[in-house]
Amino acid sequence: MNLNIREFSSSADGFRSELEALLAWDSVSDAGVQEAVANIVHQVRLKGDEAVVEFTNRFDRRQISSAAELEISRAEMAAAKLRVSDELVTSLEAAAKRVHDYHEHQKQPSWQYQEEDGTVLGQKVTPLDRVGVYVPGGKAAYPSSVLMNVMPAKVAGVGEIIMVVPTPDGLVNDIVLAAAYIAGVDRVFTIGGAQAVAALAYGTETIPKVDKVVGPGNIYVATAKRMVFGAVGIDMIAGPSEILVVCDGKTDPDWIAMDLFSQAEHDQDAQSILISPDLAFIGKVKAAMERLIDDQSRKDIIKVSLEERGAFIHVKDMDEAMDIANVVAAEHLELSIDEPEKWAEKIRHAGAIFMGRHTPEALGDYCAGPNHVLPTSGTARFSSPLGVYDFQKRSSLIYCSPEGASELAKIASPLARGESLEAHAMSAEYRIIKGDTGE
Amino acid sequence: MNLNIREFSSSADGFRSELEALLAWDSVSDAGVQEAVANIVHQVRLKGDEAVVEFTNRFDRRQISSAAELEISRAEMAAAKLRVSDELVTSLEAAAKRVHDYHEHQKQPSWQYQEEDGTVLGQKVTPLDRVGVYVPGGKAAYPSSVLMNVMPAKVAGVGEIIMVVPTPDGLVNDIVLAAAYIAGVDRVFTIGGAQAVAALAYGTETIPKVDKVVGPGNIYVATAKRMVFGAVGIDMIAGPSEILVVCDGKTDPDWIAMDLFSQAEHDQDAQSILISPDLAFIGKVKAAMERLIDDQSRKDIIKVSLEERGAFIHVKDMDEAMDIANVVAAEHLELSIDEPEKWAEKIRHAGAIFMGRHTPEALGDYCAGPNHVLPTSGTARFSSPLGVYDFQKRSSLIYCSPEGASELAKIASPLARGESLEAHAMSAEYRIIKGDTGE
Repeated sequence: MNLNIREFSSSADGFRSELEALLAWDSVSDAGVQEAVANIVHQVRLKGDEAVVEFTNRFDRRQISSAAELEISRAEMAAAKLRVSDELVTSLEAAAKRVHDYHEHQKQPSWQYQEEDGTVLGQKVTPLDRVGVYVPGGKAAYPSSVLMNVMPAKVAGVGEIIMVVPTPDGLVNDIVLAAAYIAGVDRVFTIGGAQAVAALAYGTETIPKVDKVVGPGNIYVATAKRMVFGAVGIDMIAGPSEILVVCDGKTDPDWIAMDLFSQAEHDQDAQSILISPDLAFIGKVKAAMERLIDDQSRKDIIKVSLEERGAFIHVKDMDEAMDIANVVAAEHLELSIDEPEKWAEKIRHAGAIFMGRHTPEALGDYCAGPNHVLPTSGTARFSSPLGVYDFQKRSSLIYCSPEGASELAKIASPLARGESLEAHAMSAEYRIIKGDTGE
Repeated sequence: MNLNIREFSSSADGFRSELEALLAWDSVSDAGVQEAVANIVHQVRLKGDEAVVEFTNRFDRRQISSAAELEISRAEMAAAKLRVSDELVTSLEAAAKRVHDYHEHQKQPSWQYQEEDGTVLGQKVTPLDRVGVYVPGGKAAYPSSVLMNVMPAKVAGVGEIIMVVPTPDGLVNDIVLAAAYIAGVDRVFTIGGAQAVAALAYGTETIPKVDKVVGPGNIYVATAKRMVFGAVGIDMIAGPSEILVVCDGKTDPDWIAMDLFSQAEHDQDAQSILISPDLAFIGKVKAAMERLIDDQSRKDIIKVSLEERGAFIHVKDMDEAMDIANVVAAEHLELSIDEPEKWAEKIRHAGAIFMGRHTPEALGDYCAGPNHVLPTSGTARFSSPLGVYDFQKRSSLIYCSPEGASELAKIASPLARGESLEAHAMSAEYRIIKGDTGE
């Protein structure tokens, strides 16, 4: 199948602005979505279970009469796991273990130190009490997403993990429930959409209020998350998934073609970009793609994605490739090159860096260990993969000795008065040791 | 002056719901603000400098003709510092050093580990390239806020720090500029409001686009930050400031009265709550407050704040006090008690914990070392003080050995097929070593 994919040369006039246009992605929810979501959130806050049941019956075409019917017990999760093939269960368990082990390295300890005058300063790290994990239902039900969202929360020591997953027409996905069981989800409710986010954020008679809502979802879910942010914490609002492959021309073109496909098959808005200093190699990858695409079960999606948002970029050398990679700040950056660890040092912005010819993104998506929830649309400039740190929070610790307080008060007092906050100054001054005139 | 402050007993019927009502704070910007801010953001994106100059002239009553006039150079910051009293400069420098030293402890190193088959996994930590710090101008110009927002960014290694501060009627605050100079701000622009946030988020001809916007501001600033979130990172949207003082009754009542005042003087929405198992002591603190309030320069604000949002809570014992503290999840928690370090272990949620009788919040506000930008309105349940971690981000590192990739591919392949993502499966399967049939 012919593929009409954009080709750029970094030396062409206007390349940087064309690159910017290629990457541009504005995730704006329109006024209609805003209004619909605002209404759903309002109703759930106001009427609790009643609203959740009503919206669930309406949007997921179900006929339940009480919110209690929405819960799936751990026993039902275990039963679902028994219905899943052994091969899949083994893979889920292996993936869960690897993800767990990687995330163990992200745990942050509390710390404190004592100053000479006895004052102690520190930082206490604690897990969140309760977290809600949103898992999309229907056709795009991803058990890997269950593992990736739940495991860091488990490692962080979150007290209770509530999963919500819509079951349109009552259809439950056994693999998703098996993943929930394996990951250690405490409670599952079969709700979705903005009503699920609102229920988690504000709580209802049946659904417990959580402290943070994480997990991907459609535009209604994303809009609801943005709306409840502040009442609860949220993870990032994800845009379409993207990969940037940098190849020196020495990897099998079929491998690179398939790595680009694996991103493009997600959805039509997904973005796959190849950068290489080897123009002939780019041609070989293109030929491989045109040969291999016919075998792809999701070839229609792949074609649209590649033609609408994909690109080949020919650069003059590897240094320039790294510069462009830093501009793109890709969710997934694949360095299919010699000495990738050396070149990775030049990368400042990327969600995950896949190094070497044997590290396709797909391994990271499922089981390498690092999280597959990654900053999209250039947000790797300022944000990080989902991690244990998203499920812990810090409290500052300050314990002044009388001597320490006396000295600090002499610093604080003029600053407070400089800000016209005299009660601050006086509160500090009370701690100045009498007879201590300073210096 | 008489003070009519709410008094609660934890043993009274309905106490928990009254507590909830006391703490409730909904920071909703109304439709008018939303629309005004949306328009400003749109104009700044569209017209850049021209819009920034126009809005600045209009809202800050200035008469500038080009955006270049908006910048304050490092030399002008240095000159401003010379106009500030030596005492204040010394205090600013001492505070900056202590804040710097504390935040050094928050730096997170990159890490990696190698598995038996040669696969390397890790996490690379990098600073943000460029950060914008919003500093309110006019009557509430706080140099301490400059230090607290800038120092963690400096410690993180942020490449360039851009500060914006509105100067209504062209009035510049020398102490704020001195603080900016001492903290190491790279560039200052005298702009504010939603137009400043938009300029930082999207960049103009004169004002560089940043990766994250931090710092407090009024409802227009907060609404603009929420709106640009995604294009850039933002810190939290802060609510009114609050303190929860737990006292066993053995601290000088005047000290506790002044600690409560120091919070209440911020603004009328600020919240000061005292919890004690000693009812007589609560009476003494109240008497001290009624005696001391007349001396307070901000007594009108203090009175409204205490009567509208303040409270005394009588509890049966210290265990119950800690339970309530965890429900409140206060921005500032003062444990003015014996053995505070022992009791602090029971605290799961608090922005900062001030321990002992010699650690008033005011010391932490200015110079103890920890950050004074803290989660408000119960958001300490899921968020943390501003810190170095807010100015660093992480990239996952995955470098599979051929053998490692071959094994991981066997796990990933069934999972990908279970999600109907065949290109993922094939991309992984290409890395299975030929002749290696598994197991």
